[in-house]
Amino acid sequence: MVILERAVKFEEVDAAGIVFFARFATYAHEAMEDFFSQLDGGYVRLITERRLGLPAVKLETDFLAPLRYGDVIRIETSVAKLGRRSAVFVYELKRKADGVLASRMRHTVVFSDLEAMQSCDMPPDVRAAFEAHVVE
Amino acid sequence: MVILERAVKFEEVDAAGIVFFARFATYAHEAMEDFFSQLDGGYVRLITERRLGLPAVKLETDFLAPLRYGDVIRIETSVAKLGRRSAVFVYELKRKADGVLASRMRHTVVFSDLEAMQSCDMPPDVRAAFEAHVVE
Amino acid sequence: MVILERAVKFEEVDAAGIVFFARFATYAHEAMEDFFSQLDGGYVRLITERRLGLPAVKLETDFLAPLRYGDVIRIETSVAKLGRRSAVFVYELKRKADGVLASRMRHTVVFSDLEAMQSCDMPPDVRAAFEAHVVE
Amino acid sequence: MVILERAVKFEEVDAAGIVFFARFATYAHEAMEDFFSQLDGGYVRLITERRLGLPAVKLETDFLAPLRYGDVIRIETSVAKLGRRSAVFVYELKRKADGVLASRMRHTVVFSDLEAMQSCDMPPDVRAAFEAHVVE
Repeated sequence: MVILERAVKFEEVDAAGIVFFARFATYAHEAMEDFFSQLDGGYVRLITERRLGLPAVKLETDFLAPLRYGDVIRIETSVAKLGRRSAVFVYELKRKADGVLASRMRHTVVFSDLEAMQSCDMPPDVRAAFEAHVVE
Repeated sequence: MVILERAVKFEEVDAAGIVFFARFATYAHEAMEDFFSQLDGGYVRLITERRLGLPAVKLETDFLAPLRYGDVIRIETSVAKLGRRSAVFVYELKRKADGVLASRMRHTVVFSDLEAMQSCDMPPDVRAAFEAHVVE
Repeated sequence: MVILERAVKFEEVDAAGIVFFARFATYAHEAMEDFFSQLDGGYVRLITERRLGLPAVKLETDFLAPLRYGDVIRIETSVAKLGRRSAVFVYELKRKADGVLASRMRHTVVFSDLEAMQSCDMPPDVRAAFEAHVVE
Repeated sequence: MVILERAVKFEEVDAAGIVFFARFATYAHEAMEDFFSQLDGGYVRLITERRLGLPAVKLETDFLAPLRYGDVIRIETSVAKLGRRSAVFVYELKRKADGVLASRMRHTVVFSDLEAMQSCDMPPDVRAAFEAHVVE
């Protein structure tokens, strides 16, 4: 499990006064980027130099409790499934102050060559990053 | 079915050059707002004056084809399920130019009193808007 | 003068309940894109096929009245200055309901070759678009 | 001078491949929020509990060099002017890797009671925060 903490930002709420629901996918992406800080050069180098990426094929989000400006979010990231070319991340977003689970997300990605825009096998360092965090 | 067309905006792409995956939920929300233009005063009056809303409890997104700057998106919105206090929207996002299905989303909402932040029954005009677009 | 009307979106407000100040630059960009709908293929073709663009070198924004969810914005775009390689757009953002001026923006752009990332002369159709809307 | 470092995020670029110009105002706001971490409870408590805020009346941005995904931005915040109810922040945004100045921004704010939406005098802790960073 990899843990990322970040505060809700001033502009992330909507006209109902709670975090806009599309922002949860942004949080998921931040958690994934952070997950790959395990790699040399991180997610940035993966995308910009190695030209490898992990486009989403599926994202399932359960919204369990609202988040508000002022909340700090604790995102717990783990790997629920690992294939040769695909993987499923699970993110649990908790309000840090009281531990309430605000959202659970399942994020299925396919490892891809961004030049060819085609799936490909994961290189060993990416596979190792995933394997270190697979849960049953 | 309610149809909304809108162009991908200049800032909606990401560093991989395709529409950022969190934007799809924003598109879904736009389609929902547009869906409620059937109501007197629309979604705006529902939220700001009547203080009623439809917080998401679940959002499932399948990403089937990438979208790019320059694409016009055609969003087809229908209602897959209608309960007393909840409903399931289905959005099909197609590239207008070639009709390719870029994403299918299922969006479960619970009708709520925004002051009490508690679920409540739908008023007749909201129910009628849903009923007009229920599909099997 | 070119006029664009668009509603404030649900997610464009901030935790103070008014439109987040960075959104005004987004509105300016939308107005500029709309301004170039005069061109064959519009702003999209200019950027993606012709690989010409107008990076900002300066943006000055006066915030005169807050905007809120539910407001429709009327953006009046004109050209305050026109050089060989640069131009200054002026945007006046008004609340449509009462005509109140919410913001005035001056946006200085330099016409550029996006491949070389270097300034260049404007092609005739771009110049003609500007000239049609120059004001004293 | 207060210094904030943050990486450009995956979704902050536009279809021209550089950071979208409206994002610079978002960076300015982050720097301002960070500036007020000097206060007890920070900017969050100022806004949500004390109901005091600093709406912008003017924002002037010079764009001097493009920023890209992968860049880390170093934002240097100082106070150029301090009145009884208003202040001018200056932000210098530098690319951390090479120190190149990407943007300089002047941000004029008016201290306000958010309930009355009216300007008011700054409380002593806010004034002290400003005074600690006034530059000639």
